[in-house]
Amino acid sequence: MRAALFDVFGTVVDWRNGVAREVDAFTARHAISGIDPHVFADAWRRRYSPSMEEVRSGRRPFVKLDVLHFESLQATLAEFKLDPKDFAEAALRDLNHAWHRLDPWPDVLAGLQQMKSSFIIAPLSNGNVSLLLNMAKRAGIPWDAILGAEVVAAYKPMPESYLKTAAVLDLPPSEIVMVAAHNGDLAAARVCGLRTAFVPRPTEHGPNQTTDLKPEQDWDFTATDFNALAQQLRG
Amino acid sequence: MRAALFDVFGTVVDWRNGVAREVDAFTARHAISGIDPHVFADAWRRRYSPSMEEVRSGRRPFVKLDVLHFESLQATLAEFKLDPKDFAEAALRDLNHAWHRLDPWPDVLAGLQQMKSSFIIAPLSNGNVSLLLNMAKRAGIPWDAILGAEVVAAYKPMPESYLKTAAVLDLPPSEIVMVAAHNGDLAAARVCGLRTAFVPRPTEHGPNQTTDLKPEQDWDFTATDFNALAQQLRG
Repeated sequence: MRAALFDVFGTVVDWRNGVAREVDAFTARHAISGIDPHVFADAWRRRYSPSMEEVRSGRRPFVKLDVLHFESLQATLAEFKLDPKDFAEAALRDLNHAWHRLDPWPDVLAGLQQMKSSFIIAPLSNGNVSLLLNMAKRAGIPWDAILGAEVVAAYKPMPESYLKTAAVLDLPPSEIVMVAAHNGDLAAARVCGLRTAFVPRPTEHGPNQTTDLKPEQDWDFTATDFNALAQQLRG
Repeated sequence: MRAALFDVFGTVVDWRNGVAREVDAFTARHAISGIDPHVFADAWRRRYSPSMEEVRSGRRPFVKLDVLHFESLQATLAEFKLDPKDFAEAALRDLNHAWHRLDPWPDVLAGLQQMKSSFIIAPLSNGNVSLLLNMAKRAGIPWDAILGAEVVAAYKPMPESYLKTAAVLDLPPSEIVMVAAHNGDLAAARVCGLRTAFVPRPTEHGPNQTTDLKPEQDWDFTATDFNALAQQLRG
């Protein structure tokens, strides 16, 4: 194995609490009451996959995730009976950058630091480069490179996203392990010939999460957190 | 200033001595005598800009630098009266990866580490991602991201290479400083609105170098090495 590639939203960072924190600050600053910030975060995230599906289907040319997030934010505000036009553009852009300011799960930094000594470590995320880079600089995530959808102009789980990333690394897929908290991501990576590692994040969607609690296939590795995964990969 | 982007061949790493070292090992392994490895390195490098010009001119679709280097290697061997077909493909591929195994100038790691605490630091090189990544892993170069020609499918000094990289970073060009040992690279970056920093590397081309010994424009910064540049950027 030469490289470990990571899903980011949910696997590396806790997007739900991070976005909720920023929504909470936004509503407080604008004296808006009656919005549960976690419910808002969930609603915003619910538009994530459908927004990418427009691109995956070919109905829309590739645009980076910041753009999709911004459109979804406007739609989510409307869903909560708020008119996006009532806010300064800069304030909405700042809220959209909540996704650049997410915190890693507690085990991430130490685990990645260990894996970095043996492997190339990089995100293979649907997030755009500046999003992933700003996130890494803020949180101290020690990526060797920033890869993902924007670099290859293809959103997961399209096969191109995995295969073109392997080509950029100039590695056969079998020399790469995809690390994710999502069975669907790993299933798509496996079809492309990558090795697979499942790290469950049972509170990604909050305390009542029902999905991705367990491995749904016999993944090459299953580990409780990034430290345990680093141990397993060291063999 | 938010980001510092670096030319790599010549500015960050000493390509001439690094390639010569690998050519020397290759000729020794194959019991070839009578080749001065520095002369070979210079001959190989002489094909660099013309090979990219095919792409820059639009006569050829974008291909990554590893491909151009490999074609140039074959032509250079022929120039030295060696038939590429006399060598195993794997041996030639390995020699081609000499460009992945170059050493930084002595001031680079400490200087970059300082700059990394205040700015995004990344290569803006004509090298492809795997070349720059393998080089960084081997030498401990602490890039925040691997950017450059392959990510934006444009070779320097095409304006697209600078402007699309700024777009990937989601930064106005004025928030980026281009660092290079080459006046031509900085001139092209300046036209695109980037700030500019000149760090001379007076032995890049060997002891008798005549080019790029001095700044040819009034660059925003001129520094003797990366440590001095880090000081200046801290301002």
